[in-house]
Amino acid sequence: MAAVITLTTDFGARDPYVAEMKAIILGLNPTVRLIDVSHEVAAHDVIEGALALDAMVAVCPQGTIHVAVVDPGVGTRRRGLVIAASGQFFVGPDNGIFTPVLSRSDWQAFELHAAEYRRSRVSATFHGRDVFAPAAAHLALGVAPARFGPPVTDPVRVPLAASRDVGRGVEGRVIHVDRFGNLVTSIDSETVERLSRSARALTVHIAGRRMPVVRTYGDLAARGAGALVGAHGRLEVAVREGSAAARFRARRGAAVRLSRSTTSRAPRRKRA
Amino acid sequence: MAAVITLTTDFGARDPYVAEMKAIILGLNPTVRLIDVSHEVAAHDVIEGALALDAMVAVCPQGTIHVAVVDPGVGTRRRGLVIAASGQFFVGPDNGIFTPVLSRSDWQAFELHAAEYRRSRVSATFHGRDVFAPAAAHLALGVAPARFGPPVTDPVRVPLAASRDVGRGVEGRVIHVDRFGNLVTSIDSETVERLSRSARALTVHIAGRRMPVVRTYGDLAARGAGALVGAHGRLEVAVREGSAAARFRARRGAAVRLSRSTTSRAPRRKRA
Amino acid sequence: MAAVITLTTDFGARDPYVAEMKAIILGLNPTVRLIDVSHEVAAHDVIEGALALDAMVAVCPQGTIHVAVVDPGVGTRRRGLVIAASGQFFVGPDNGIFTPVLSRSDWQAFELHAAEYRRSRVSATFHGRDVFAPAAAHLALGVAPARFGPPVTDPVRVPLAASRDVGRGVEGRVIHVDRFGNLVTSIDSETVERLSRSARALTVHIAGRRMPVVRTYGDLAARGAGALVGAHGRLEVAVREGSAAARFRARRGAAVRLSRSTTSRAPRRKRA
Repeated sequence: MAAVITLTTDFGARDPYVAEMKAIILGLNPTVRLIDVSHEVAAHDVIEGALALDAMVAVCPQGTIHVAVVDPGVGTRRRGLVIAASGQFFVGPDNGIFTPVLSRSDWQAFELHAAEYRRSRVSATFHGRDVFAPAAAHLALGVAPARFGPPVTDPVRVPLAASRDVGRGVEGRVIHVDRFGNLVTSIDSETVERLSRSARALTVHIAGRRMPVVRTYGDLAARGAGALVGAHGRLEVAVREGSAAARFRARRGAAVRLSRSTTSRAPRRKRA
Repeated sequence: MAAVITLTTDFGARDPYVAEMKAIILGLNPTVRLIDVSHEVAAHDVIEGALALDAMVAVCPQGTIHVAVVDPGVGTRRRGLVIAASGQFFVGPDNGIFTPVLSRSDWQAFELHAAEYRRSRVSATFHGRDVFAPAAAHLALGVAPARFGPPVTDPVRVPLAASRDVGRGVEGRVIHVDRFGNLVTSIDSETVERLSRSARALTVHIAGRRMPVVRTYGDLAARGAGALVGAHGRLEVAVREGSAAARFRARRGAAVRLSRSTTSRAPRRKRA
Repeated sequence: MAAVITLTTDFGARDPYVAEMKAIILGLNPTVRLIDVSHEVAAHDVIEGALALDAMVAVCPQGTIHVAVVDPGVGTRRRGLVIAASGQFFVGPDNGIFTPVLSRSDWQAFELHAAEYRRSRVSATFHGRDVFAPAAAHLALGVAPARFGPPVTDPVRVPLAASRDVGRGVEGRVIHVDRFGNLVTSIDSETVERLSRSARALTVHIAGRRMPVVRTYGDLAARGAGALVGAHGRLEVAVREGSAAARFRARRGAAVRLSRSTTSRAPRRKRA
């Protein structure tokens, strides 16, 4: 069966960089199926890339190979990695972009080193094309991860926002603003469920406003604001058919608090 | 032969939503060929999605499966649909996005209901991934539309701008502004031909200006404005190597009138 | 083996134009592999399209078919072309977009003329869909280039910025600004190497500033500016984890000078 290779980069849509990677991959292995995850990761934003990649792991078939190239350190001595985890494979720079993978499962990592699995001439500025794309194509051809180089036991990790218990609730951060202006937070569905069990209703505070926790967008009034557990298992702040990012002027890093409601099920609010 | 699945959404290019749908599809059916129609449909703009989809029907091979996810009502009681029409298939929310399909051909519609053709756990906010993508993959595997659920005889339709006869001509609306700033109107090629038969020449009025109807961009002077029947069989207002949208400050909904020219073949104009 | 077809256009991501081309191609030849090079070429910018295409030739497998549709003259008497060069094929309008191909290798060109390899009805405004896409699909099916029409010996060429020797160095132009704000110049790696052989160090001047030539981004201080030979074999001006385009307010066409350093290896600069 043809392997799936996913591509996550900060290369944008205008330049031919992504296409060059695909040409190298298909030249080496014409049977693979390619999926573009995102090429609009903010330039050099390793954390945004890590979150996009993390969302893919849950839905990709066994054996999928994920290539991630958000790589401000290209050409320096930062290592390249191939990682096997959760029955899937990960190829890219050792700069923390694989942090969620490393924290969620057993993994084995190897340094991308073997000359036979990279292009004969490697540029100093485009390892996506010259190192990572050929490595992914060779993995898809069946080359074992350990063949690429020596084991790596200390891959780089980046701090990812989490959530912590505070008083009567939990505090987290906005970790991503999506296309619709939804504010994805670091508070996960398990935490929301845990609090739900001891409360009639939950309230979210962000940017000095408070709003109810609902099940889906349709539970909100037109242009109403609320929080819900989104499709990636995280609490999200949303405005129905509107942008929560615009209404609350909130960006990544903004504080968000989830707490047990003190009063009524649907907390009063003048305007969410 | 591998089926073609097209994808039309308002998910944008930055988030992994489209890629998650593709991973689900390829996991279920690794042989399908995927075509991205557009993921830059304006957020929640069902009509823009409907028009993009409509353009595809004319060029896609028999058996093509079109997945359309512009879905502001996700998680509410709006139905999901699978429609068979014109030898092609359509999967998405029952919110009017399939209106052109329903008005142009015989069709059969069914509610997306069967649990075996959706993901085991369906989120309240992302049916594109959890309901529509697996339905499309199963259609491509040969599952008959009627297997997905009960027939639907009253699918939702949205009003689409048309054209109407007024005095010596026809009045319509701008229904889409394309990447080049061309103003695509609701006046179709049949209407243009009908008027042509009884007139030496045709004139278009928009935003207080008038301009000739020509055959192609190259018939216009440099930076000249005119109207022509575009590649989708609709009258379009264009500026040669420029943007008609910018010049006429026209947006979707702007009125446009097509009429028989009263004077010369090439109407005088100071500056289109 | 399935042929690779690459697509380079100025159609953008919002409209279904690219998808219509793909539907035509897959309808005629369901085995081809498609690679999107860019659809964000600036509208009507033949030179930007030519450079994107040029980057692809170096990395694509033998037999690849490149379709390029930046086509302001669509519908006029400009010819359509199929070109065989370097073991690859090129399909698109005869407006100079293939200039780099014509200057780098032996080539044979033919006019796209045969009715059997285009759609039965050809619109006046969308040859990408009606002429070029079907031509590419037929090439991938094995139709020989000469079957498409008569030989063309005088394809259109556009002037591409080059570099020229001036005094103690070389002068060129910015030919492209990439997603990261890197300024890609017309000075190629051979020229840089030639000057290197007779100098301890090289200096680049742009916009009244001077900066060193380095090997990779990592050789620059944080937010430091410098020039380096990029992944496409051209001198590029870069700012580490920043935008050279923003810092130097430089756009395509900006003059850049490469010269032997007169003083120290790392030229002093207050702020690059």
